[in-house]
Amino acid sequence: MRKTMFDAAELGHKVSKRDYAEQAPILREALLKAQYALLAKPEFPVILVIGGVDGAGKGETVNLLNEWMDPRYILTRAFGERSDEESERPPMWRYWRALPPKGRIGILFGSWYTQPIVDRVLGNTKEGEFRNALDGIEKFETMLAADGALILKFWFHLSKKAQRKRLDGLEADARTRWRVTRLDRERFKIYDQFLAVSATALGQTSTGAAPWSLVEGADANYRSLMVGRLLLESLERRLGGAPRAAALTPPPLEPRVDGRNLLKALDYGQRLSEAAYRTALESLQGKLALLTRRRAFQRRSLIIVFEGQDAAGKGSTIRRITQALDARHYDVIPVAAPTEDERAHPYLWRFWRHLPRRGRVTIFDRSWYGRVLVERVEGYCAAGDWMRAYHEINEFEAQLVEHGAIVLKFWLAITTEEQLRRFHLREETPFKTFKITEEDWRNREKWDAYERATCDMVERCNTSIAPWHLVPTEDKLFGRIAVLQHIHDTLNAAL
Amino acid sequence: MRKTMFDAAELGHKVSKRDYAEQAPILREALLKAQYALLAKPEFPVILVIGGVDGAGKGETVNLLNEWMDPRYILTRAFGERSDEESERPPMWRYWRALPPKGRIGILFGSWYTQPIVDRVLGNTKEGEFRNALDGIEKFETMLAADGALILKFWFHLSKKAQRKRLDGLEADARTRWRVTRLDRERFKIYDQFLAVSATALGQTSTGAAPWSLVEGADANYRSLMVGRLLLESLERRLGGAPRAAALTPPPLEPRVDGRNLLKALDYGQRLSEAAYRTALESLQGKLALLTRRRAFQRRSLIIVFEGQDAAGKGSTIRRITQALDARHYDVIPVAAPTEDERAHPYLWRFWRHLPRRGRVTIFDRSWYGRVLVERVEGYCAAGDWMRAYHEINEFEAQLVEHGAIVLKFWLAITTEEQLRRFHLREETPFKTFKITEEDWRNREKWDAYERATCDMVERCNTSIAPWHLVPTEDKLFGRIAVLQHIHDTLNAAL
Repeated sequence: MRKTMFDAAELGHKVSKRDYAEQAPILREALLKAQYALLAKPEFPVILVIGGVDGAGKGETVNLLNEWMDPRYILTRAFGERSDEESERPPMWRYWRALPPKGRIGILFGSWYTQPIVDRVLGNTKEGEFRNALDGIEKFETMLAADGALILKFWFHLSKKAQRKRLDGLEADARTRWRVTRLDRERFKIYDQFLAVSATALGQTSTGAAPWSLVEGADANYRSLMVGRLLLESLERRLGGAPRAAALTPPPLEPRVDGRNLLKALDYGQRLSEAAYRTALESLQGKLALLTRRRAFQRRSLIIVFEGQDAAGKGSTIRRITQALDARHYDVIPVAAPTEDERAHPYLWRFWRHLPRRGRVTIFDRSWYGRVLVERVEGYCAAGDWMRAYHEINEFEAQLVEHGAIVLKFWLAITTEEQLRRFHLREETPFKTFKITEEDWRNREKWDAYERATCDMVERCNTSIAPWHLVPTEDKLFGRIAVLQHIHDTLNAAL
Repeated sequence: MRKTMFDAAELGHKVSKRDYAEQAPILREALLKAQYALLAKPEFPVILVIGGVDGAGKGETVNLLNEWMDPRYILTRAFGERSDEESERPPMWRYWRALPPKGRIGILFGSWYTQPIVDRVLGNTKEGEFRNALDGIEKFETMLAADGALILKFWFHLSKKAQRKRLDGLEADARTRWRVTRLDRERFKIYDQFLAVSATALGQTSTGAAPWSLVEGADANYRSLMVGRLLLESLERRLGGAPRAAALTPPPLEPRVDGRNLLKALDYGQRLSEAAYRTALESLQGKLALLTRRRAFQRRSLIIVFEGQDAAGKGSTIRRITQALDARHYDVIPVAAPTEDERAHPYLWRFWRHLPRRGRVTIFDRSWYGRVLVERVEGYCAAGDWMRAYHEINEFEAQLVEHGAIVLKFWLAITTEEQLRRFHLREETPFKTFKITEEDWRNREKWDAYERATCDMVERCNTSIAPWHLVPTEDKLFGRIAVLQHIHDTLNAAL
């Protein structure tokens, strides 16, 4: 017989009734204690991923964990058919929705593993696609772990023989017959393929940050104690102060030798006359209006990101875009400090929340790039957090594009002299004073640091699927038209 | 010709191009200013309900408001077909989701009026049902207004003649033809019925707290200035300190003359032996498990509310219920202090968020009754707020039941002596000390006030569709079985 990684879960593990009766209550009390300690100091979430062979006790174990611990602070989520709201967003959207906040335990019954494995077993995907999907999962879990999540993945295994025996046994008893569905029987027929594909999945995704634990499912006592102890030990270790996966010291950034950079290289002298602006604005807004009403757009969505120095004209540019759109079909999301709910979740959660459905437009006034701009410069997050954000953001945008979204990113650029002029103008115009605060002046003092952060960001996140567009808005009219023109051209080419 | 309320919007209102050009910029600036003042001090939300005849400029006005003001702080929501996630909850769920938080302006294009009016026009509902629906709307809006929302409702009107002319005009021009759909033409055929039904709706729901404003839609300049000014004036009045609708002084509660009350009348001597408990528990949990797996339950949902004195055994009772359920099908929602997002919305919003889909169970550990218990006793809300909450809660629960939910409400009751004993026990058991805090002791000092609040609550919210069950849990075993038995009996009768 061929050796597989699952051999380790076919050893015939067994715990006697007496041993179980002795050990379970102790384990249970310790688990409950650990759960309350987590709740009392909610610094990280616990994510339990439950996968494996049918009939190996997944459901029973999930129920048992809810019984042993306090179910009020456990979020158990099973994933069946996707709802229509889910299918209109990238596949990972439903899992982002289900992530537990810090201090809570989330049990994911079925998870981001299910679809890639099933698709591969049924031959809906090729090996390369399957590997890509696993690669995406690995990145996702690495991000969660780096963000502080304690991730435990349990794979429940049952040998072919044991599984047949178990299914037969359940069916023989009138009280348990309901638990064996036709689907269970159909799946049993493809047991071998399922195992082979799963082995690949487990092999590729058993990372240091999110390892898989194989659980032999045949004996209920054994698997219950096994899962309970693994959870307890991991939890106690983290509560006891073991560092989260992210605690990396970032390497120093390469220094800039001469004074040149992407922002300084822009041509800030470009101007547009008022008359030319009027004509172009009307024409572009009209075309944009028609483009977003095309039938083809109903299968896509448009996500526009605006970043830029303070007073570079983000708000007024956004208004020129929304004027062309139907208010029923767009949302503008101003991004400021995160709310309480948002702080309790991984960084990107707050943006996943606002993703548009198909046929819709979402404009972000500042965005997920805050991580590598303001949070980096002001020290709002650890160096490791923003260092890894470039990669996470690229991955995030790739998911958006893959699902059919058109992602446009604009950096509106002005010179330091022009910013000063606009700040003074704001202070002098009674109606605009609300737009200028102490904080704007403080940020201005860090001009160089922000410029550095911006250049790094553009360098690292200037992907072919979602490139950055640096638009000098020294002349506001020129800037607005440049942005509108670019949106129009991209949309026109995409639809 | 028959006189109707719409005559006032068929006067041929008109604003010249010159007057509009002069007045619009001033209005616009004032609106923007008011919007920023609202944002700077986010004390209430603004809700604009847009309804009326097709072709009367609703869409144009919504777009214009987004253009005049800062679209980043406006939430525009249109309501088309309900998503499957929406149709699995009570009809109002989708509108609760769309409510703007304090400080923002929400524009609801189509609203809770659409379905009742359409249903009545098409003859899907009888007059009585229609009136009931309007009654529900009136209560909902009264609640929003009492909670502080500034509600403005605009009804866009166009005479039959003007509407025909407008539709014909749009169709004649290639650039605007897309705006006239087959549905528009079909609706035009039932113009008279639509108007008659709408008149009833407007008449019954033009309350002081949320009045309708009729807008003659024929002239774009007129209707734009009209809507803009109404919004501006209302907004400025509220920002200037006009009291919100809720500022009522509640009448004094009737005093209790003798010492008797519902809680004191309970029989706290009821006991159950350990053996009887074991047998009953196993039997009831088994039956409950089967009941929730019945096909009939897939069309219902179960909502269980637990309230009770501190240490009355809510947590341990909940665990005895969840043990019988599949963890994939229930959620337990522990209710503590509201989050930031929750505080920015009307009180019941945080509970609407957690309503179960069909076939699911949600257990609330403490609930919306906090408003008339802890918030009343501790003074966390104004007297007017908890005084009106009884009525609002009854209305909320009626919506749940009407949509097929089974709502069970338990008050777990212990005597003051038993609570003291349990508090000491918690302090002495190392493992349970987390369960007893300073706050528990403080609450205990207010025993009488809480008892009073509890009795008022039960009296006022003991509805036939969602009655209260007062369960003495002086003996925990007796209490748990009483609760389980009641859940079983209700579910059994309902399915």
